[in-house]
Amino acid sequence: MAAFNDRFLRACRREPVDATPVWFMRQAGRYLPEYRALRERYAFLELCRQPQLAVEITRMPLRRFEVDAAILFSDLSLPLLGMGVSLALEEGAGPVVESPVRRTADVRRLRPLEPETDLPFVLEAIRILRAELRVPLIGFVGGPFTMACYLVEGRASRDFARVRALMFSEPGTWHALMEVLTESLSRYARAQVAAGVHALQIFESWIGVLNPLDYRTFVRPYLRRLTETLQPLGIPVILFGVGTAALLEELAEAGGTVIGVDWRVPLDTAWSRLGDSVAIQGNLDPAVLLAPFEVVVEHAARVLRQAGGRPGHIFNTGHGLLPETPPDAVARLVDWVHAWSLAHPE
Amino acid sequence: MAAFNDRFLRACRREPVDATPVWFMRQAGRYLPEYRALRERYAFLELCRQPQLAVEITRMPLRRFEVDAAILFSDLSLPLLGMGVSLALEEGAGPVVESPVRRTADVRRLRPLEPETDLPFVLEAIRILRAELRVPLIGFVGGPFTMACYLVEGRASRDFARVRALMFSEPGTWHALMEVLTESLSRYARAQVAAGVHALQIFESWIGVLNPLDYRTFVRPYLRRLTETLQPLGIPVILFGVGTAALLEELAEAGGTVIGVDWRVPLDTAWSRLGDSVAIQGNLDPAVLLAPFEVVVEHAARVLRQAGGRPGHIFNTGHGLLPETPPDAVARLVDWVHAWSLAHPE
Repeated sequence: MAAFNDRFLRACRREPVDATPVWFMRQAGRYLPEYRALRERYAFLELCRQPQLAVEITRMPLRRFEVDAAILFSDLSLPLLGMGVSLALEEGAGPVVESPVRRTADVRRLRPLEPETDLPFVLEAIRILRAELRVPLIGFVGGPFTMACYLVEGRASRDFARVRALMFSEPGTWHALMEVLTESLSRYARAQVAAGVHALQIFESWIGVLNPLDYRTFVRPYLRRLTETLQPLGIPVILFGVGTAALLEELAEAGGTVIGVDWRVPLDTAWSRLGDSVAIQGNLDPAVLLAPFEVVVEHAARVLRQAGGRPGHIFNTGHGLLPETPPDAVARLVDWVHAWSLAHPE
Repeated sequence: MAAFNDRFLRACRREPVDATPVWFMRQAGRYLPEYRALRERYAFLELCRQPQLAVEITRMPLRRFEVDAAILFSDLSLPLLGMGVSLALEEGAGPVVESPVRRTADVRRLRPLEPETDLPFVLEAIRILRAELRVPLIGFVGGPFTMACYLVEGRASRDFARVRALMFSEPGTWHALMEVLTESLSRYARAQVAAGVHALQIFESWIGVLNPLDYRTFVRPYLRRLTETLQPLGIPVILFGVGTAALLEELAEAGGTVIGVDWRVPLDTAWSRLGDSVAIQGNLDPAVLLAPFEVVVEHAARVLRQAGGRPGHIFNTGHGLLPETPPDAVARLVDWVHAWSLAHPE
């Protein structure tokens, strides 16, 4: 039996590693033909709800690639379902909420999540994977702002203007919504840790639509409460958002062990802004993987040079893999990153 | 007859002004009931194509508000129509292109724009407005990257992943596309200046999806060529993009006289990054205008304090006014900004 591969966890703690660890957001997803085959037989929600299917999909990329971590196959919106929200899941486009939250009465109808009762199948999948995997298992939750985005706007949007408008116009409704979301997401995150995940990623994906001052007023207290809930559990917490160039320092201050940087900010810039107290995950543009492999290598080398061999770099894309990604390019990239970093020890 | 109000032009040149000039992106648009009434009688494209209608809509906000500039009512996509692209105009959502550009053969089918032949009605509207208005008239073009985004992706998108993929995968196609777009947009911008606009805004709206290195390789040469084409004409050029926190210095270097900043970057941060060689336009979050007026004032005061009374501040929203904006809030805001800046001379 192969030894447990702890490169990813060591990098999260900024300890020395033999090679840069690699995993990809959406590595278990639509770009894999074996996933699409399974998806033809089951509704997307079924894939999340049947532990054996979620386990199978989580393992798919591990069979193909030498990635250094697994991320649980699941969906950000499951806790909303558990909280009593009616929604349709559009794969890749995010949840579409039937009755968006607009007033305090809408917030009062939300039931705080009971993970063991509402989402037992997620916890069961984690327990199975924990016993089987030879790489760390990453669990995840949406960040409170991102979940509020779906609830208020009703669906994904470019800049969630209606969410910002509610924040400014109805701060009482906003804070009530963030309270119930933060409590539910904290419970869900703790339950995933109790079931066995080695690390947890908070997808505060849409936080980049806020400026730093509004972030501090309307989100910071809740995001910090969520990370503080996890600190005593001793696992790495990855905090990821898209388009966060105006917010990087805020995210580091929010309590992530690892800051996930999207493809827009060069990692040398990110590291000089964040200092050495956090690890950094990122940040190849996922669109690069649709180009010929010599272009992939050129961009991946740029990411690694910008990371500069610092302890605490986890190689990833700057956002999820695109459905058009050729799996073979992913396989070659994983091997190339490992080989490059072995050849460039710091 | 009232004297010509040149506050806006003076601020563009960073000259002293008696009060901070104010105008708003989409100030002539769907939030105005008189616009919606006209829109019920005419297709959106007709409103752009009949000079008297475009003139009438351009003047609508001037009848209601003491704004210090008018922006021509028109649409970013008109030059694409002139270049032979089939597209549907979805008001507010941007153009939807029938056959997206994916290969060099698609680029070859694009005909370089002849503004006087292809878009005479736009130039006619400018000539009428130039003779009538007592405030400066702002013309506009899309930036070459933003126009390429619509052509390649086919429609608006959150992060234009397919555009980035084409850039990386088919650089020859990409550069050919940027060549023909830059030439067409340069001609169109020059024709607007010849017809009489006092200033020109380049809406490089989606540039913020790129990181600085890819921007330099794939966009910078074209954006600079466009601004250099305008420099000898001696009019202010406003360069605006959304989510440009990772690119601000690049945009200043691209040759704008004024940099339009979206609501994400506080203006004091923007100014310390950009230095005193450019004027800055922005950046109230347009979603704030949906809140009670005391909240509007609080946020507007923050913007003005961050601008710090420096010469060269033009007050605007950080993106276009939302369709739900109450016109009365806009009227009160314009007066409030003028009064505040009169009371806080620097």
